[in-house]
Amino acid sequence: MLNPADAAFAEHLATRLPDGTLREAAPAYLEEPRQKWKGRKGFVATPADTETVAEIVRACAAARVGIVPYSGGTGLVGGQISTDGPVPLILSLENMSAIRKVYPRENALVAEAGVTIAAIQAAAEAENRLFPLSYASQDTARIGGGLSVNSGGLNVLRYGMARDLCLGIEAVLPDGSILRGLKRLRKDNTGYDLRHLLIGAEGTLGIITAATLKLVPRPTHTATAFLEVSSPAAALDLLALLQDRAGDVVSAFELIAGTGLEMMAEVYPDTRQPFPEPPEWSVLVEIGTSDGSDPEALLAHVFEDALSNGLVRDGIIASSGAQQTEFWTVRETIPAANRTIGAVASHDISLPLSEIEGFIAEATPAIAAIGAFRINTFGHLGDGNLHFNIFPPKGQSPNKYPAESELIARLVHDIVAEKGGSFSAEHGIGRMKTNDLLRYGDPTKLAAMRAIKTALDPLGIMNPGAIFASE
Amino acid sequence: MLNPADAAFAEHLATRLPDGTLREAAPAYLEEPRQKWKGRKGFVATPADTETVAEIVRACAAARVGIVPYSGGTGLVGGQISTDGPVPLILSLENMSAIRKVYPRENALVAEAGVTIAAIQAAAEAENRLFPLSYASQDTARIGGGLSVNSGGLNVLRYGMARDLCLGIEAVLPDGSILRGLKRLRKDNTGYDLRHLLIGAEGTLGIITAATLKLVPRPTHTATAFLEVSSPAAALDLLALLQDRAGDVVSAFELIAGTGLEMMAEVYPDTRQPFPEPPEWSVLVEIGTSDGSDPEALLAHVFEDALSNGLVRDGIIASSGAQQTEFWTVRETIPAANRTIGAVASHDISLPLSEIEGFIAEATPAIAAIGAFRINTFGHLGDGNLHFNIFPPKGQSPNKYPAESELIARLVHDIVAEKGGSFSAEHGIGRMKTNDLLRYGDPTKLAAMRAIKTALDPLGIMNPGAIFASE
Repeated sequence: MLNPADAAFAEHLATRLPDGTLREAAPAYLEEPRQKWKGRKGFVATPADTETVAEIVRACAAARVGIVPYSGGTGLVGGQISTDGPVPLILSLENMSAIRKVYPRENALVAEAGVTIAAIQAAAEAENRLFPLSYASQDTARIGGGLSVNSGGLNVLRYGMARDLCLGIEAVLPDGSILRGLKRLRKDNTGYDLRHLLIGAEGTLGIITAATLKLVPRPTHTATAFLEVSSPAAALDLLALLQDRAGDVVSAFELIAGTGLEMMAEVYPDTRQPFPEPPEWSVLVEIGTSDGSDPEALLAHVFEDALSNGLVRDGIIASSGAQQTEFWTVRETIPAANRTIGAVASHDISLPLSEIEGFIAEATPAIAAIGAFRINTFGHLGDGNLHFNIFPPKGQSPNKYPAESELIARLVHDIVAEKGGSFSAEHGIGRMKTNDLLRYGDPTKLAAMRAIKTALDPLGIMNPGAIFASE
Repeated sequence: MLNPADAAFAEHLATRLPDGTLREAAPAYLEEPRQKWKGRKGFVATPADTETVAEIVRACAAARVGIVPYSGGTGLVGGQISTDGPVPLILSLENMSAIRKVYPRENALVAEAGVTIAAIQAAAEAENRLFPLSYASQDTARIGGGLSVNSGGLNVLRYGMARDLCLGIEAVLPDGSILRGLKRLRKDNTGYDLRHLLIGAEGTLGIITAATLKLVPRPTHTATAFLEVSSPAAALDLLALLQDRAGDVVSAFELIAGTGLEMMAEVYPDTRQPFPEPPEWSVLVEIGTSDGSDPEALLAHVFEDALSNGLVRDGIIASSGAQQTEFWTVRETIPAANRTIGAVASHDISLPLSEIEGFIAEATPAIAAIGAFRINTFGHLGDGNLHFNIFPPKGQSPNKYPAESELIARLVHDIVAEKGGSFSAEHGIGRMKTNDLLRYGDPTKLAAMRAIKTALDPLGIMNPGAIFASE
């Protein structure tokens, strides 16, 4: 059993750390974006270097005190908030915020865990490179957390998830030893890939303190379009057409439901709508080239063909950088409007592309049978990743439907599982989906995960309660 | 301690398996391409399905008999050949050779472990897709082994290593349980990524039996050039120029030393040389587009600029598909010529791009100080991956230099380590580099690897002697 990070432990720990490293945790560390979990009062450590992180981990191991690693605090599944068991120490990486070095000719940079995604993007841009990881919370989200949950976002179709953008990591393991793996190599086949094991482990196997990140050539020309389609299936046909014509230069392919545009109009009436009337289904498409070819002409050709064969009903190709930004603002405002209205149930699911149409056809009437809910389906269609979110009728509070909430989540995840999909595409398990993992996870995988957890963290001090349901 | 897979065990095992699954191992299973290791006589099992693989593993676990997984047999570090300890059972995946299904619209296919790389390429091509994994042994090498060693090859610069092309795996773990992870998902954040742990584990944590593989849009136009450069540094400048102009459509960027062309002329005088006289350094470049832009014009522009600013001295852009093939034949014939002549020491190293010039400048005179050797430096320069191979003076046998061989390998790997590189870029550890791993590996990484190995394979039956030096 673990011991709490109480005042006595804090007093003892403080003597081993640089002044100012340890303090009582402000309320911000005890909250998360959707206000579903509330942490308990306790202490937060804010080490400024890797050695101090290791010192803290060793002290916690010796005292059998749990540690919750804290990055940008933007996680959506409660991975950063401990709600039960002995109060853990919060270890925030916010003071490890240096970009240690940029290697433009190598298309790489080394960032500490506390650097925000946006700051990494900016450092890449300063060298005419692109760091493609991009999502709504990027100004607050930090790379340590982004790697720990293997975050996704808007450019996965072309550039992959966080793990695909990481060449090496430095991490403190549960015994306080430091894994020094910041190599800047594209190829390194020297034993088990601990990098990929720690990425996505949500802080349960160690604390990522720094990473070598991959940069890519910056597209010199981008073109963006908002296109009305008749159905998600038509959207997928459009994607296939686009990939046939444009190959792998399609950077983003986002599905947007009319419900999402309507909800945006309710909450943010000043945000410019892409269409006079919200179409039932539309897609936001971006392509970017850097070989001198003209992506706007390419997009215009595909648009024309898709209009003539009925895949697309209407659409606009952005005619300026300002309009491109406007389109992306719509995409980013939809989840914000969702949060304001409040979901009865929200799902971060992925499906094989060919199962998406069937999933929507099956889930929609099943949810209608439970109640008169509004469904907002949006997300990264090109990756098979839907945010399939269920809302109360207009004007009603989501809190009125606790029973329906559970019923719907089960129903959605059951259909997803039956179609070979995932109940967590990009948000992770955290504390929200531990039971889903038990229910839908492959038993052999779960057994191997437990064996690895026990082998690397025998005391169970790393993010106790995350991924594995508390016993 | 393990027990041998002797006649008594074979007799017992055969009763549990379909007829014809078990037999005495033919000599081919006991040899490897470079003839450095020789296996001992024993038995080979050739299961035709995953359940039978699991049955074999369970029987071996019960009897504490070691298993050496056998794929295409093309590995270069002895991972497929057991040379000491109790004789293991060889488990060949050759009869699991079905492509279970192709999903062209999802850019994915599911292949069993025994399918050759070339057969997967062909299945992708039949659907107008590309499976980009490509290397000299692709007609013989099988995907199970390719994933187990995380193979690289010619297209890593653009498309990544084997692990980057794998969406999911099915595997039999050391206790005989079956990991069912053949999902066709681009995003699936549900716990530890066992796929990436098994990929590159060289069969020491389980046996990969099938994989879901990623396909990509097939470039519609490719252009290939052989360009003479003044030095490896100039080659890297040329790569930077090319990436500035062409972005991420550069598919391959291979460095070729004059020594390699000369050795090819000695062994394969009929293979057409790209230049009248072998230049000291040249590069083989390929770009491929599918957005309608003209890669040949792009390459011609870059060639012209590189000529005028001195990066390139001479060169040829292939004027036909036949000439493209001819260029690639040169690239593939160089390692064949190397094998015929026989290396005193060969190295599969990677370096940060900015350290390559310094490495060559340091290693070349150090080797010259040991003896009058010929150095053939070639490989995937864009990935920082050099095959840095040392040969005896013309006409002499490499076997005359056993002491020099060890001396040179140590010297090369020491310089590589000092410059932040890797002593195994794409071939893995096998049995050849277990001591290098001990010498150059991060101690924290090695301790974690041992803990994981013990947790998942407590009896030590999976490929005993590979990766971890025999105790």
